[in-house]
Amino acid sequence: MSDILVVGSVGLDDVETPRGKVTKAMGGSAIYFSYAASYFSNVNIVGVAGDDFPLTEMKEDLKKRPVNFDGFEIIEGGKTFRWSGKYKNNMNDRDTLLTELNVFETFNPVIPSNYNNKPILFLANIHPILQNSVLEKVNSPQLVITDTMDFWIEGNRAEVDKVLKKSDIVIINNSEAELLTTYSNFTKAAKIIMKESNLKALVIKLGKFGVYLTNGNEHFFLPAYPVDEVFDPTGAGDTFAGGFTGYLAKVEKYDFETLKKAIVYGSVIASYTVSAFSVNALKNISDKEIEDKYKEFKDFVSF
Amino acid sequence: MSDILVVGSVGLDDVETPRGKVTKAMGGSAIYFSYAASYFSNVNIVGVAGDDFPLTEMKEDLKKRPVNFDGFEIIEGGKTFRWSGKYKNNMNDRDTLLTELNVFETFNPVIPSNYNNKPILFLANIHPILQNSVLEKVNSPQLVITDTMDFWIEGNRAEVDKVLKKSDIVIINNSEAELLTTYSNFTKAAKIIMKESNLKALVIKLGKFGVYLTNGNEHFFLPAYPVDEVFDPTGAGDTFAGGFTGYLAKVEKYDFETLKKAIVYGSVIASYTVSAFSVNALKNISDKEIEDKYKEFKDFVSF
Repeated sequence: MSDILVVGSVGLDDVETPRGKVTKAMGGSAIYFSYAASYFSNVNIVGVAGDDFPLTEMKEDLKKRPVNFDGFEIIEGGKTFRWSGKYKNNMNDRDTLLTELNVFETFNPVIPSNYNNKPILFLANIHPILQNSVLEKVNSPQLVITDTMDFWIEGNRAEVDKVLKKSDIVIINNSEAELLTTYSNFTKAAKIIMKESNLKALVIKLGKFGVYLTNGNEHFFLPAYPVDEVFDPTGAGDTFAGGFTGYLAKVEKYDFETLKKAIVYGSVIASYTVSAFSVNALKNISDKEIEDKYKEFKDFVSF
Repeated sequence: MSDILVVGSVGLDDVETPRGKVTKAMGGSAIYFSYAASYFSNVNIVGVAGDDFPLTEMKEDLKKRPVNFDGFEIIEGGKTFRWSGKYKNNMNDRDTLLTELNVFETFNPVIPSNYNNKPILFLANIHPILQNSVLEKVNSPQLVITDTMDFWIEGNRAEVDKVLKKSDIVIINNSEAELLTTYSNFTKAAKIIMKESNLKALVIKLGKFGVYLTNGNEHFFLPAYPVDEVFDPTGAGDTFAGGFTGYLAKVEKYDFETLKKAIVYGSVIASYTVSAFSVNALKNISDKEIEDKYKEFKDFVSF
């Protein structure tokens, strides 16, 4: 088993969907990622929050799972990053109602020395300048997995490209793949990204339609695990990445067959995320439940 | 092997996509369907065209495949149904520039007596009043497979419901499933449609993302066969239905495992359709090519 080092955002979210709403709920890419990845492997989290963040609750949630908080900085008197969003009826489009960076504005990731044991590094969706600074601070990670978003691709393309150059696996969605290549056809976009990079693999998330994986030669497509009642899509992508990275860290293999399985585990975990608000559905999943869903998923796509 | 009886539109299309354009190209649901289904089974086509339709060319294209034209009516001096559309860069959204019903306006499907041998009936996307009239004219079809569209669901819901009630399998896309149920979540929509009907199965097409199949208890999801260079998406849905129905007619079994395979064959054929304009890529596919693509597809989704 490898250690995972995740650097990302920590937030308090107000989220309203057609199914309900929550206020000041735990959120942020590093949080969702850690709840998910810790089902599979050791997770070392690096992030910053104000003292309004319910760290005690998070530690209680995760006390049975191997999460290390040494790099989780609490700024006394500071306020945690706040995001507020309202989802439309299709549970896909959303309006952002509020973004307050707060302590996240001056986030300078510090990597504890005990995090530097050849980890799998997951660069969650944060400013590419921060992602690049983390890449300089982490000693020879055995695998770098990177997320990003449209905002950075449009506004900081050169920095994004620099991160991608140092990454082994990139996880983006299909509109981000289009932004990177101008091609809306995601298999075409993937071909171009793989051709122009040294990536070991590229993962393109297709929202409720599933995930596409390629290493340039081989292809894999997995639908989303069917969820009848989506309560809150927030964090689905980050928990997918958490399950994906967690499984890779657990088995310490990165061949295409293993990557496929990691995609399935990521999708299984993401199906929990969307079935409740915030991280609520990610608190107590048994290994057996995860394995059962994995098998059910296999039936669902086999012919 | 069963006979298929298809009733649908016959058209001459002007299509422009980012890859090029064609004028007065063969089109229409019955045409695309027949080109596809005839790779698998006998096809009896019922449709109407003017004498501007290149029937000789179509017969030449299909001379090695079992298509019966006895129910294909040519109105001397009449003009074929005309449609013109322009696709946007994403190859998904399109503007309809022209619709001229012409001889299709007074289409009154006549079923030749030799078409009435317990066929599998495919009701392509035409006015639900016509679909209902066909259902009254065909003696005990062994399976009724129905397509429809948003326009009829919105404007002629009662007639659409009447058709669905007499159908065994319905093929729609996800926005049509939403129109029928108000739910944008297609697995949720499918659950409701299956609960409120006597359908044996429901197929929901997800465009470039694939196809979902359910019989109410079992579920299957297949991504679209990846096509790097889409030239013209027109007819993809009709040829999918053609391959699907054709395979069922070939094997004469309708259990869930067989339906799954039919979905794969439908998707394989549809992948040819979009790789060229009009029916051009559907003229000469070998059985071996189809089987090879089927196997390749299997690799692509297996883990």
